[in-house]
Amino acid sequence: MPEQSLRSVDDHLATVLDGIGTIDPIELTLLDAQGLLLAENVVSPVPLPGFDNAGADGYAVRAIDVRDAADGNPVVLPVVGDVVAGVKASAGMGPGLAMRIATGAPMPVGADAVVPLDGTDGGVARVAIHQAVLSGESVRRTGEDLRAGQPALGAGAALGPQQIALLAALGRDRVSVRPRPRVIIVSTGSELVEVGHKPSFGEVTDANSYLLSAAARDAGAEAYRVGIVHDDHTQLLDRLESQLLRADILITTGGVSRGAFDVVKQALSEIGTVDFADVAMRPGMPQGFGHLGDRVPIFCLPGNPVSALVSFEAFARPAIRKLLGKRQIHRATVLAVALERVESPGGLREFRRGVLHREADGTYSVSLVGGAGSHLVASMASSNCLVVIDEDVTEVVAGTRVTVMPLLLSNR
Amino acid sequence: MPEQSLRSVDDHLATVLDGIGTIDPIELTLLDAQGLLLAENVVSPVPLPGFDNAGADGYAVRAIDVRDAADGNPVVLPVVGDVVAGVKASAGMGPGLAMRIATGAPMPVGADAVVPLDGTDGGVARVAIHQAVLSGESVRRTGEDLRAGQPALGAGAALGPQQIALLAALGRDRVSVRPRPRVIIVSTGSELVEVGHKPSFGEVTDANSYLLSAAARDAGAEAYRVGIVHDDHTQLLDRLESQLLRADILITTGGVSRGAFDVVKQALSEIGTVDFADVAMRPGMPQGFGHLGDRVPIFCLPGNPVSALVSFEAFARPAIRKLLGKRQIHRATVLAVALERVESPGGLREFRRGVLHREADGTYSVSLVGGAGSHLVASMASSNCLVVIDEDVTEVVAGTRVTVMPLLLSNR
Repeated sequence: MPEQSLRSVDDHLATVLDGIGTIDPIELTLLDAQGLLLAENVVSPVPLPGFDNAGADGYAVRAIDVRDAADGNPVVLPVVGDVVAGVKASAGMGPGLAMRIATGAPMPVGADAVVPLDGTDGGVARVAIHQAVLSGESVRRTGEDLRAGQPALGAGAALGPQQIALLAALGRDRVSVRPRPRVIIVSTGSELVEVGHKPSFGEVTDANSYLLSAAARDAGAEAYRVGIVHDDHTQLLDRLESQLLRADILITTGGVSRGAFDVVKQALSEIGTVDFADVAMRPGMPQGFGHLGDRVPIFCLPGNPVSALVSFEAFARPAIRKLLGKRQIHRATVLAVALERVESPGGLREFRRGVLHREADGTYSVSLVGGAGSHLVASMASSNCLVVIDEDVTEVVAGTRVTVMPLLLSNR
Repeated sequence: MPEQSLRSVDDHLATVLDGIGTIDPIELTLLDAQGLLLAENVVSPVPLPGFDNAGADGYAVRAIDVRDAADGNPVVLPVVGDVVAGVKASAGMGPGLAMRIATGAPMPVGADAVVPLDGTDGGVARVAIHQAVLSGESVRRTGEDLRAGQPALGAGAALGPQQIALLAALGRDRVSVRPRPRVIIVSTGSELVEVGHKPSFGEVTDANSYLLSAAARDAGAEAYRVGIVHDDHTQLLDRLESQLLRADILITTGGVSRGAFDVVKQALSEIGTVDFADVAMRPGMPQGFGHLGDRVPIFCLPGNPVSALVSFEAFARPAIRKLLGKRQIHRATVLAVALERVESPGGLREFRRGVLHREADGTYSVSLVGGAGSHLVASMASSNCLVVIDEDVTEVVAGTRVTVMPLLLSNR
């Protein structure tokens, strides 16, 4: 194949990302919004805290009344009541008195500080205080964390536990977020049988739809496997068109190579908006990308599992993360010392499977697993990273550093 | 408070982890098992590939017939048929002949190599071959990736996209895994109101159950908010007991401080198996841990949001990850240059909220956000890490390095 006909990985990725639009924000309940990006600017409707309250368990006092208190010189005050959290009105308290108060309970009118329990004898009718406090000490002031009308979280904020807690504290049970893209995955090939059906001679169990569904979910999408399509134009187009209404992205795998029997390539080329290109990468050279229906992006990935994964990582994952609104659409990479010599063809970006080790000193080393064969699903399962060898590199010398893309597992 | 009465963070964590057992494995469908650890040793019931097949689109030949083929010296062979993927039986082929073959299609009996399309003129009735091949070239041998009876994945393997693909390829639609712990979360406090209900004076919207539910899910658990319990012994015990059958871990928040009104502490102390201790940390000093019912672990965390999060990170998250079977139960930490001076009390492990920056050279720097107040839910939402200041450190000088625990967001 003449190299001048190849499209670079970067050019193909640029084409893909240009073809990815946006998804309208949706309202979700707080916990459903976890991990997503906020699509609205949230202004606090209330102050936080909502009222002056005790910052410690202890005794509400006027600071001036205990200014001389010290170890060995206690000030004894009458205790005129208890203030617990949840009372609906402020208590009142005169000078020279104290009230027992719980953390979070409203400050009594007339008190301006709290002496923590440790600074007292814990008395019930009278309390001996052996610690002076300043006015305002151990008091949480209305609005000191956030004032009413103040920006709380801006559009684009990632919603983790802390952000969800803040939204709850502001009384929000639903928020507008950028939703998870719905990714529809179709495996194609007359040789494929469903998992759980014993393959006859010549048949292969469909692993790719599982691979890509899991990878799409790992990228943050909702993935829908819609099963296997055998090599039949009409069936393929029907299956894809039936999914268009719910799809944000369509992915097919298989049927895009340069052989004579590549149904996906033929069927979708007829539609006219899906462009097939040979991309300067290994594995994964034959790539299709375009749109179906009302501009739903479609990726036509190769059918070998390793090629499918590498293509997904190179092109589909950044597209999903762009739709999610993530600032970092690309996986982080690290530099690792190659533990063996690696040859690579010039002019192609090569992605090899590897095992990345983190050394005790925080540096990384990497060894390869599996051969160059893109059908090696078992050896792929023992890898935890892709080793990326750039187009202009034909040899990585053992002991030198190479770029590695860790395929870290998310918990979900 | 006398320091000798404090339990160290490490001792409390050891107590917690000692009190965490295991959960019986369950069978899940492949995609439900994503992110979990395998609980069985999977041996391959079949070889992968399942039959000799073509590794490239091209022509199946006998290598010996094309040994002299070269650019300018093509060997021309009659093409006696097409072999496509999905055919149910091997074709047969005599010497001196060729068959067109698609990647993945079964090798014809009598052929021992594939000449890739690029090494030919692509002919239909006859093909001109200008590339010699070795016997076995571009042929994927039965079992070369994995032999029948060979170990495929061992118990403890984390199931990411690649591992799920391998299990699918082996025909497994369900696997035995360590399940997600079911974590039940109860917020306690008479002052609490549900999100969406406008708090009256003295009331506070419950944010902690959202905070801890999100944090538990982030740790890999299934989280169930079972709402608010006001400060009432009977209601609290009833609520907890009603959840015992489905709970792997119970978490309460609130009501464990040293004040006079701490219902959780009083109610659960009566049960006798929940131990309350003051732990040498800030925030989060008052901690309860023990068991309810048939040895269901229960964490009684403080009620201030920052204290609740820090306590969760210090104790409950490692417990969840132990139940998941993770090898790394603790969050990774990094060393970061402190951008400001930080004072810290001796004898306590302090956790401050911070903003971690990754510099262009790959090093980290960290600045603090929010004060020491553990009620500061808004400033907590602007942090992305906890700065950990060890018990024996009373001052971090600006420009020196400090331990930081990034609170990275997972996608889910």
